[in-house]
Amino acid sequence: MRIDGVSYRTIWLASDGIGVEIIDQTRLPHDFVVLTLRSLADAETAIRDMWVRGAPLIGAAAAYGMALATREDATDAGLAAAYARLHATRPTAINLKWALDEMIAALSPLPVADRIAAAYARAAEICDEDAAMNSALGDNGCRIIADLWAKKQAAGGERINLLTHCNAGWLATVDWGTALAPVYKAFNAGIPIHVWVDETRPRNQGASLTARELNWHGVPHTVIADNTGGHLMQHGLVDLVIVGTDRTTRNGDVCNKIGTYLKALAAKDNNVPFYVGLPSPTIDWTVADGVKEIPIEQRSAREQTHIFGKTEAGTVTEVQVTPDGSPAVNYGFDVTPARLITGLITERGVCPASPEELKALFPERG
Amino acid sequence: MRIDGVSYRTIWLASDGIGVEIIDQTRLPHDFVVLTLRSLADAETAIRDMWVRGAPLIGAAAAYGMALATREDATDAGLAAAYARLHATRPTAINLKWALDEMIAALSPLPVADRIAAAYARAAEICDEDAAMNSALGDNGCRIIADLWAKKQAAGGERINLLTHCNAGWLATVDWGTALAPVYKAFNAGIPIHVWVDETRPRNQGASLTARELNWHGVPHTVIADNTGGHLMQHGLVDLVIVGTDRTTRNGDVCNKIGTYLKALAAKDNNVPFYVGLPSPTIDWTVADGVKEIPIEQRSAREQTHIFGKTEAGTVTEVQVTPDGSPAVNYGFDVTPARLITGLITERGVCPASPEELKALFPERG
Repeated sequence: MRIDGVSYRTIWLASDGIGVEIIDQTRLPHDFVVLTLRSLADAETAIRDMWVRGAPLIGAAAAYGMALATREDATDAGLAAAYARLHATRPTAINLKWALDEMIAALSPLPVADRIAAAYARAAEICDEDAAMNSALGDNGCRIIADLWAKKQAAGGERINLLTHCNAGWLATVDWGTALAPVYKAFNAGIPIHVWVDETRPRNQGASLTARELNWHGVPHTVIADNTGGHLMQHGLVDLVIVGTDRTTRNGDVCNKIGTYLKALAAKDNNVPFYVGLPSPTIDWTVADGVKEIPIEQRSAREQTHIFGKTEAGTVTEVQVTPDGSPAVNYGFDVTPARLITGLITERGVCPASPEELKALFPERG
Repeated sequence: MRIDGVSYRTIWLASDGIGVEIIDQTRLPHDFVVLTLRSLADAETAIRDMWVRGAPLIGAAAAYGMALATREDATDAGLAAAYARLHATRPTAINLKWALDEMIAALSPLPVADRIAAAYARAAEICDEDAAMNSALGDNGCRIIADLWAKKQAAGGERINLLTHCNAGWLATVDWGTALAPVYKAFNAGIPIHVWVDETRPRNQGASLTARELNWHGVPHTVIADNTGGHLMQHGLVDLVIVGTDRTTRNGDVCNKIGTYLKALAAKDNNVPFYVGLPSPTIDWTVADGVKEIPIEQRSAREQTHIFGKTEAGTVTEVQVTPDGSPAVNYGFDVTPARLITGLITERGVCPASPEELKALFPERG
C-alpha cells in the first residue's frame, strides 16, 4: 500500500540481502521509522515488543527471524533453539507457530550449508504468499461490500459505513491487510466507503495504526471510542462490521483483540452483518471451542495505566491516566462465538462460521 | 465519603455563606483542588466544562447556580435568564432541568427581596435530599449484593466481583453515589467486594474518578479497558453489573455513558445480573422510548483525539493519540433498552425495568 505515494510492504529484505527492514509500529502514528533487524535477537525483540504486530506480520517476521538465525547457527540444534525463542515471543497468534513450522519443514531436509539461502527464499515466499492471500481475501470481501452498496445506493444511501476494531490492515500483514483488504479493494474500485475506527484500548491500535494507514491511503474514516459502536448500530449508522482474527477455531470461534466480542453482540442485536477477515493460516484446526480452550494473553498493566501520545510541542511521551495506587489488568484478546458471526472471509471465498462450512472450504485441512 | 480520613461532600457552601465550593473534577485523579463559585457565570462554566459532572451533582450545582444568580438579579426576568443559561450548559442530564424547575417553583411565589435566602435554603435542601436519597438507594442495592454474596460464599467463593462503567460514585452526586452507593454500603458492612472499573473512554471517568474515589475509601478495585468486560463475563469473573444513569424513560430505558449498552448486551449473553442505580429525579416521565426519543449529546472530538495524564515528571499534560488529519466523533451517551436490564435500584426499592413496575413504585409521578 502507499505512503505519500510510495508503495511499501511492512517487511522487506534490506539492500545488503541480509538485514530485514520493518516499520517500527510502536513509533506510529506520529513518527515513520524504518528499522533493520540483523540477528535472531533483533527479530525476537521486534515481535515481543511489538515493533511488528498483527498475526500475519508476526508470522512473516518469525520466518525472517529463522532466516537470520541460520546465519548464526544453521544446525538442527540451532534451528530448534531459534524456533523455541521465537515461539515464546507472543502466546496467542497462531501464525507465529505456522510460519515457524513452515520454516522448519523447508530447512530440516537440507544440508546445513544450504540452509541460509533456503531460509531467506522461504521467508520471502511466505511474505509473497501472505500478500497474495490477502489480495484474494480482499476481492472476496469487496463483493460483500459491493452488494451492500448496490442495495443502499438504490435506497438513496450516500456511502457504506463499515466499522472495524483494532488494526487488521496492511500494517498487520505483509500487504493489503485482512479486515481492511476488502476496504482497500472497495475504495480502489470507487465505492464510497467510510470506516468507523475503534480506538482499541489499551494499545490504541485503531486510533494509531488503522487511522494512520487509512489516512495515508486516503480512505475516509472517523476515530471513535470503543464504547461507541453499539450506539452507532442502534441508529443505523453501521452497514457492516469487519474485524481481523488472531486465531480462529475449527468451529468458527474467533479470537481477536479484546472488545471484538462486544461489537459482535451489538451487531447481532441490531441485525448488522458481522464478518471476519480470515486468511487460512489463522485457523487453528486443533481447537474447537474458543472460549473454553484458547488461553488469553495478559499483557503489562502499564499498557492500561499509561498512554503514549504526542505533546503540543511535538514530542511523543507517556502519561499516566489512573491514580497512583489503583491496579489494572490487561487482557489482550477475547473470543467471539461463531453464533455471532455472519461470515468468514477467506482467500478461497466467504463461508458461514461453522465447522462443516470451514471444512468444506479447506477440505485438505479440516 | 472520606478523603484521607476527612469527610467530604462534592459541593458545599463556603464559610462566607455566599460562595459555593466544589472539587474541580477535571483535575482528578492527580490533583485535589477545591474551587469557589461566586457567580452565575462561574456555575455555568463549572457545569459546561465539567468541573462538576454526574447527573445528581449537576442538579445540585445548578440549584446553587440559581442561588448565586439571585444575588445578581432576583427578579422574574433575572430568574428566567439564569434558568435559560444554566439549562443550556449540558443537554442530556434530566436532573439539571429538575433542579432548575424546583428552584423556580420555590422562588417564583416569593417577593423578590426574599428570594436570595430562599434560594440558598432550597439549594441546601436539594443537596441534603440527594445525599439521603442515595443512601437509601445504597441500602436497597446492598441487599442485592448481600444476597449474591451469601450464595457465592456458600459455594466457596472468595469475593463479589462487581463491574461498573463511568463514574456514578459519590463524585457524581452530592454524597454516596448512585451505582456505587450499594458498593460503599456493602464494603462498610464487611462484604468482600472487588470492583472492575471500566476506564470509560473518551473522558476516562472510570480510570480517573471511580478508581480515585474507591482508592480513597479503600475499596478493592481493578481498572480495565472498556473492551474487557465481555471477556470477564464469559469467564465467570463478574457477579453483577451496576451502572448509573443520566436519564431513564418511563419505560425503563436507560440513557447513560456511551458504552453502557455494550456491557448490558454482554451481561445478558452471560446471565450476569445488570442493575441501574436510579435516584428518582433521574426518571424522565415525559419520554417512553429511549433509543428513539433521547437526543444524544455530541462533545468535542478533541476529547477523543487527546488524553490528559500525568507525565513521569509529575505534571499533568495532554497528548494526542490519533494521527494528524484523522477526524473523530464523540457521542457522550447511549441508551440501554429496558429488556437488557435486570432491575432498577431506586431510593424506594428495586423494581424490574418496565413502565408498570416503575409506575407502581412512583404512583404520584407515573
